[in-house]
Amino acid sequence: MNVTDAKPTPFSFPPASTALIVIDMQVDFMERGGWADAIGLDVDALAPVVPVIAALLDCFRQAGMPVIFTREGHRPDLADCPPFKLARRSPKVGDQGPRGRYMVTGEVCNDIIPELAPLPGEPVIDKPGAGSFYATQLDQILRLKGVTHLVITGVTTDVCVNATIREGNDRGYGCLLIEDATASYNADFTDAIFAMLRTGIAGATAQCADLIAAIGSAALARAIA
Amino acid sequence: MNVTDAKPTPFSFPPASTALIVIDMQVDFMERGGWADAIGLDVDALAPVVPVIAALLDCFRQAGMPVIFTREGHRPDLADCPPFKLARRSPKVGDQGPRGRYMVTGEVCNDIIPELAPLPGEPVIDKPGAGSFYATQLDQILRLKGVTHLVITGVTTDVCVNATIREGNDRGYGCLLIEDATASYNADFTDAIFAMLRTGIAGATAQCADLIAAIGSAALARAIA
Amino acid sequence: MNVTDAKPTPFSFPPASTALIVIDMQVDFMERGGWADAIGLDVDALAPVVPVIAALLDCFRQAGMPVIFTREGHRPDLADCPPFKLARRSPKVGDQGPRGRYMVTGEVCNDIIPELAPLPGEPVIDKPGAGSFYATQLDQILRLKGVTHLVITGVTTDVCVNATIREGNDRGYGCLLIEDATASYNADFTDAIFAMLRTGIAGATAQCADLIAAIGSAALARAIA
Amino acid sequence: MNVTDAKPTPFSFPPASTALIVIDMQVDFMERGGWADAIGLDVDALAPVVPVIAALLDCFRQAGMPVIFTREGHRPDLADCPPFKLARRSPKVGDQGPRGRYMVTGEVCNDIIPELAPLPGEPVIDKPGAGSFYATQLDQILRLKGVTHLVITGVTTDVCVNATIREGNDRGYGCLLIEDATASYNADFTDAIFAMLRTGIAGATAQCADLIAAIGSAALARAIA
Repeated sequence: MNVTDAKPTPFSFPPASTALIVIDMQVDFMERGGWADAIGLDVDALAPVVPVIAALLDCFRQAGMPVIFTREGHRPDLADCPPFKLARRSPKVGDQGPRGRYMVTGEVCNDIIPELAPLPGEPVIDKPGAGSFYATQLDQILRLKGVTHLVITGVTTDVCVNATIREGNDRGYGCLLIEDATASYNADFTDAIFAMLRTGIAGATAQCADLIAAIGSAALARAIA
Repeated sequence: MNVTDAKPTPFSFPPASTALIVIDMQVDFMERGGWADAIGLDVDALAPVVPVIAALLDCFRQAGMPVIFTREGHRPDLADCPPFKLARRSPKVGDQGPRGRYMVTGEVCNDIIPELAPLPGEPVIDKPGAGSFYATQLDQILRLKGVTHLVITGVTTDVCVNATIREGNDRGYGCLLIEDATASYNADFTDAIFAMLRTGIAGATAQCADLIAAIGSAALARAIA
Repeated sequence: MNVTDAKPTPFSFPPASTALIVIDMQVDFMERGGWADAIGLDVDALAPVVPVIAALLDCFRQAGMPVIFTREGHRPDLADCPPFKLARRSPKVGDQGPRGRYMVTGEVCNDIIPELAPLPGEPVIDKPGAGSFYATQLDQILRLKGVTHLVITGVTTDVCVNATIREGNDRGYGCLLIEDATASYNADFTDAIFAMLRTGIAGATAQCADLIAAIGSAALARAIA
Repeated sequence: MNVTDAKPTPFSFPPASTALIVIDMQVDFMERGGWADAIGLDVDALAPVVPVIAALLDCFRQAGMPVIFTREGHRPDLADCPPFKLARRSPKVGDQGPRGRYMVTGEVCNDIIPELAPLPGEPVIDKPGAGSFYATQLDQILRLKGVTHLVITGVTTDVCVNATIREGNDRGYGCLLIEDATASYNADFTDAIFAMLRTGIAGATAQCADLIAAIGSAALARAIA
């Protein structure tokens, strides 16, 4: 077991069974011309997490630890989109935007941003909701990989990250949220989720540099062995 | 469809298909001698929601609308309790307290408080986690009752209520959180969840009195018809 | 409610809430060069169901009733394929065949046969297992479409059809298996599943012509109205 | 890994991660005065499996391997019972019989037969359907115990055993059905399920004596070490 500094207490993790979960780092939430931008949210507020997640991807890949991406989106016919979600915003899920139909799987605007593009063999989970476990293969893939601990990153902290960490904790996964690798459009929401999780009720939170240091020594140890 | 004042926008609901969900109003979270009290949380902070939920129970029962309770707890052998949860607090889940073993199904301290006791025929869902849908029959029961809209109440706002509203929203249920019928040990957390939900991202929030007024007129209309 | 002759008793169904489920009518199971053929199974034994399912598709489409397809397959990295399944046969899931990698989503051999090609807007569910509900969006899509009754067709009767009808029945869907629209490589298995289901324990069975007659009169009634 | 003789090929299993699953050995299915008896099924046909399962329970308990029971039943208000199931038989689920309400959790007739009574600490899963995974905590408990292989026993072979083995196989569990530890009211159905499973499509089948021999040597090895 490796150990990283974390709140409320240090977080122990077995590197071979710990996966990096990169949540919804997709054009629709991160870039101009995507859905969030179209409905008036400030996508620039999320930009600082990109290089942090890139560093974590480098670290996990070099250490041979599993990496899984999620993407929130819907079928072209919107058969998996609840009516409440469709009615919630204008433009709506499925409307045509400058970079494709908003929040529709397969469209340019629904893909993961190029800076964080998955490598071949890294699973991408298309999910219809905020939580990454509902109506997806995430649990199946984690089970088959023998994953027991999740390092959670991505956007937005109060919606999809919040939902996923609750689902993961209920299923018995040890969950660690990386504070500088997650953001919301409203920074108060990000801070509130951090405060909630720092009580330890659903896992722990850490800083990217601390986790990389904790993994790095493991990679080093393996290189020596 | 009835309509209640709500944030961010009025909330429409079909009374016959709208269920009151009362989350975890159990001795372990609400009273002295339960688990929350034992680990040092201020259970008095939650007391104000009791009469509000009692009023909602009266209203739903009189209107003939479905009522469902949840209770977080574990089997006596703790087979359904993740190790991370066991390790999190002292005293631990399963330890003996003055009113039974903490957070164990069937113990006095795990039962719903007498002021809000379920009536015969009102389902009580024993759940192993924060979310009310994971590893339970809640979705089955809602489906069989034809429920499409959830009025969510109970404790705590940032943990079990937060998790359940996310799960319910992902499954396509219209979710309405009653602000004065939910609380956390830390009032800042309660306020933060309200602020998040008032954006409309996972449903809406309302006040108890507004919802009762909206239901009452329906009951009245039915009485007249 | 319409009613079709069925065993053990006539089957009532509301046309607008009844979906045709077409299970795994994919090259890998149905044609030469697919996986079943490669492991030595007789794909010709399944051919008779193709025109029957085609007739049902015509009927449901004309009546405006929902149609959903499933396809058993795995991610290119096989992250969702259990090791027991990988070890079971030679050639294996994921091996290269004459029409692509066997049982891998996106390969020619994993696609639905051209005679039964889905129309735009008809959902196709990629599933990692035999059951169509596990780790898929099927339940979400049925729920959002308001579907309560399933007309089940496809291959093979004893594996994916058997698993799906059990899952559907447990979830409260009224399930009707169309006998001449399903087959197994071993006809004894097909007959055995029919005998089990004709007891009524998990639904009912019917003949294609009877169901079409029962729907046809509904379509006629709607055309008149 | 231990190995038992099995069909179609020997079955390897790690004893510490292999659980005995005892399905629905309850009065309602096994004894006079229960539901099966009331609807006219021949409960004597199932009696031969009782001593076989008793022997397996002894073996697993002595070897310190996990044991889990299931019980099909419904809440007293039948909120979790699909209408199709209610309508299927007479007397119905929930009707009063000589040993309590049929198929209702908590009634004498719904309890496990005394010969196979669970010991304290052995989980009993109350399930609303045929499959043991749907709307239950079984998967959570297996996950938390680190179980990867299931030895499946109980009744009836074509309904709850058939459904559970399909669900378990889809989730990646290695499944072994013990032929002399399972039965149906109709012996042809039992034989048909054996024939299907002996193809290896969803696991394997074995005889009780072979499995006990394979476990026994492991217990012996552990005693020596």
